[in-house]
Parts: sequence; structure tokens; C-alpha cells
Amino acid sequence: MRLRNKPWAEDRLNDFPQYVIQQPVSHKGKWHEVFGNDNPLYIEVGTGKGRFITEMAKAHPDVNFLGIEVYGSVIVAALDLLIEAEVPNLKLLNVDAANLGDYFAKGDVDRVYLNFSDPWPKTRHAKRRLTYKTFLEVYEGILPEKGEIHFKTDNQGLFESSLKSISEYGMLLKFVSLDLHKSSFEGNIMTEYEEKFSSKGNRIYRLEALFQ
Amino acid sequence: MRLRNKPWAEDRLNDFPQYVIQQPVSHKGKWHEVFGNDNPLYIEVGTGKGRFITEMAKAHPDVNFLGIEVYGSVIVAALDLLIEAEVPNLKLLNVDAANLGDYFAKGDVDRVYLNFSDPWPKTRHAKRRLTYKTFLEVYEGILPEKGEIHFKTDNQGLFESSLKSISEYGMLLKFVSLDLHKSSFEGNIMTEYEEKFSSKGNRIYRLEALFQ
Ligand SMILES: C[S@@+](CC[C@H](N)C(=O)[O-])C[C@H]1O[C@@H](n2cnc3c(N)ncnc32)[C@H](O)[C@@H]1O
Ligand SMILES: C[S@@+](CC[C@H](N)C(=O)[O-])C[C@H]1O[C@@H](n2cnc3c(N)ncnc32)[C@H](O)[C@@H]1O
Repeated sequence: MRLRNKPWAEDRLNDFPQYVIQQPVSHKGKWHEVFGNDNPLYIEVGTGKGRFITEMAKAHPDVNFLGIEVYGSVIVAALDLLIEAEVPNLKLLNVDAANLGDYFAKGDVDRVYLNFSDPWPKTRHAKRRLTYKTFLEVYEGILPEKGEIHFKTDNQGLFESSLKSISEYGMLLKFVSLDLHKSSFEGNIMTEYEEKFSSKGNRIYRLEALFQ
Repeated sequence: MRLRNKPWAEDRLNDFPQYVIQQPVSHKGKWHEVFGNDNPLYIEVGTGKGRFITEMAKAHPDVNFLGIEVYGSVIVAALDLLIEAEVPNLKLLNVDAANLGDYFAKGDVDRVYLNFSDPWPKTRHAKRRLTYKTFLEVYEGILPEKGEIHFKTDNQGLFESSLKSISEYGMLLKFVSLDLHKSSFEGNIMTEYEEKFSSKGNRIYRLEALFQ
């Protein structure tokens, strides 16, 4: 599963069990044990090379963070950042977000971040978008009542379809910015993709929505 | 009420009872009598000088249209357009949208258009925005079940706050475009403000939402 044809990445991820969760299913319902405290747990789904989650973990030591990424060959870059940063409140998990319900019980996770998720612009690929209703179901199943999703992207089509998907799901839109970098939003931490695309002049869209 | 300190506008509006509704309260529950058919009735709230509603009426002869504008001195320009266009399926109404519940029963109106509504950017003026919850209540009270609002604007802040307001109200977002003029949306009819602001390079935002 984790392999994705990159044995070197697999090996490296196995070499750091203190940073990379090895048996996620064994923590279901008791993730606080993994971090050794009762702080809230915020996860990033599709964490990529890990810049956002590492900086978030540094900025918010009283929150636990977990970076989730399906590609081992990508998340090894996050592992390198984490090894260097040595933040005790961050761990990584190399799984497909579709299966998060296998690893987390309702309320195990306190917030879900989605950053620059793959846009899958073709209608026939809509189900792969991380804001598609089946993914919203997964997040609802692991968040508490009124649990929140924080989502940003530069992709106009993905943002439009996400607004609709979130509305159709019956979620409440709590915050929306159609030009984050020109807004009064404070404490923004840029992701790798955000840096790349905003430096090209792309606008960044952002929303916060909650299950109700 | 209608006067707003412009007696000349008042006089002119009174001179054309075939185009300008004189006693709206008398039509409550029976607006089809005004148009002499059973076609649906679409209203534009804040119709300004009337270009949009006049062009819509020409393009959709099987729909009745009503342009609603609080300022007599503004709606007289719409009256001039209407006199020239001679479309039988368009009338004008010079009232404040806050009072629409006095003139329309539930289901009298089939769709509400809001175009380039005044943005009222200051938080203390939020209640004046035509997408504020008290206005949504008014629209819900005159539309049928699943009645729709179609809204466009170039104002980013107004669009952001409208998305939130619509979501908080429990409405369903059916369509959203964050750059209407570059989208595949067909049959767009430009308003006066749309022409002005899009020619300055402003993006046009658009949404359709329904009560549920
Ligand atoms: C476009 S990248 C953005 C990375 C990072 N969040 C950023 O903003 O720089 C999207 C990432 O999401 C990951 N991803 C896509 N679908 C996923 C899924 N179902 N489960 C976990 N990760 C996923 C991809 O492998 C990719 O690394
Ligand atoms: C910025 S203009 C836009 C006019 C036109 N819709 C367009 O797009 O060109 C907004 C109009 O809404 C009208 N308006 C604002 N509040 C209103 C209310 N409560 N009832 C009726 N009209 C209103 C204003 O008088 C003004 O003419």
C-alpha cells in the first residue's frame, strides 16, 4: 500500500517510527496516547512536502499536528523537515485520505486542513477532489460535532466546486476570502504550492466550513 | 414615500400607470392579473436604470419581469427604456425591498435577481446589504419552496459576506462563478454597473442559491 513503487521511500519512512506513524489502526480512538497529551489534533490532508504543517507545529506548540500524504516519495521530504525541526507535536502518516475512517474514531481529529488539493478539473474525476462529498463524509466521521475544515487553493474551479459541495453537504461556511494575500487574515502560513502560485500572481482562495 | 425629494420623478412615474405599478398592495396574491397571464414572475431588486431587466424581458417573452428600485430619480431612467422597448412583460415598482412582504404573498415571485447591489462595506452597515439575513427572510416570504436568488457583483467583500450570509441562512448554493466573464455561463445580460466595472478590469462574481 504505502510503497507506490519507491522502496527507498518506504525504507526511509520505516526508519523513523518516532515521526512516521507505523500502525495507524492501532491508535484508533486513542490518538492522544501517540502525542502523550490531551491537546487537540489538527491534520493536514495531502500534506505534500510538509512545509505548512511543520511551520504550524512550530507556531502552535499546544496543538498536535499530523501530516497525511498518500505518496511515500513525497512525504519523505516532510520527514526531512521534521527531522530538522524536531518539533514534538508533529507526526506524519503515509495513507490515502479515503481510508481515514479506518484509523480515526469520531472526535479523534479536531480540525482538517486542505491546502492546494489536486484540482481534478474534469467532471469525470470530480470524485477524486478532496472536497467531494465522499471525502466530506470521511472528515465528518473523524471530527467532533461542529468540526471544521480549513481549505485554501489558487485553483478557481476547485474553489467553486468546493463551495457547492460544502453547501450541498449542509455544512456552514464560516469564513471565505477570495484574495487571501490581500485580506486582513492573520497568521497565514504559506505552503509550497502557495508560494509557487502566488509568486506567479495567482490569487489565493480560502474558506473555513463546519459540519452541523 | 416614493418621493425622495424629486417631485419631477414622482410625476413622471405617475404618468405611466401602464408601466409603473401604482398600488402594489392591491396586487398581493394575484400578480398574474397585472400581466394578464400565468407566466412566472422574476423580479430584480435594486434595478437601477433598468438595462438588465429590459434586456431580460426582451430575451424571455414567456416570463414576466418586474424591476424594483427604491429611488424614483433612478427608476425614471428604467421607465424611459421601457417606453422605448415596449415590452409587454415588464413593469416597474418604486419601493424599498425591505417592504416587499407587504406587496407579495408567498409564491407570487418565482425568482429574485440581485445585481451589483450596494456593497455597504462597513460592518455597522451590514444590515443594509441586500443579501443580509433580514432581506433573505423577505425573499423567502415571497418566493415558492426552493425559490432562487441569482446574484452578481464585482465587489469582493460583498460577495464574500453574501456567501456566508446565504450559508448561515441554510440556503443551498447551486452555482458559483468567481470570474463570470471568463466562464462558460451562457446568456449573460450585462447591467449598467457590470459594463462599467468589468471594463475597468474588475472580475464579476455570480451565484445562484435556493431556499430549502
Ligand atoms: C498539489 S499537492 C499540495 C501539497 C501541499 N499541501 C501544498 O500546498 O504545497 C496535493 C497533495 O495531496 C496529495 N493527495 C492527493 N490525494 C490524496 C489522498 N486521497 N490522500 C492523501 N493525500 C492525497 C498528493 O499526493 C499531493 O502531494
Ligand atoms: C449599485 S446600483 C446597481 C444598479 C443595477 N442593478 C446595475 O447593476 O447596474 C444598486 C441599486 O440598488 C438600489 N437599492 C439599494 N437598496 C435598495 C432597497 N432596499 N430597495 C430597492 N432598491 C434598492 C439603489 O438605489 C441602486 O439604484
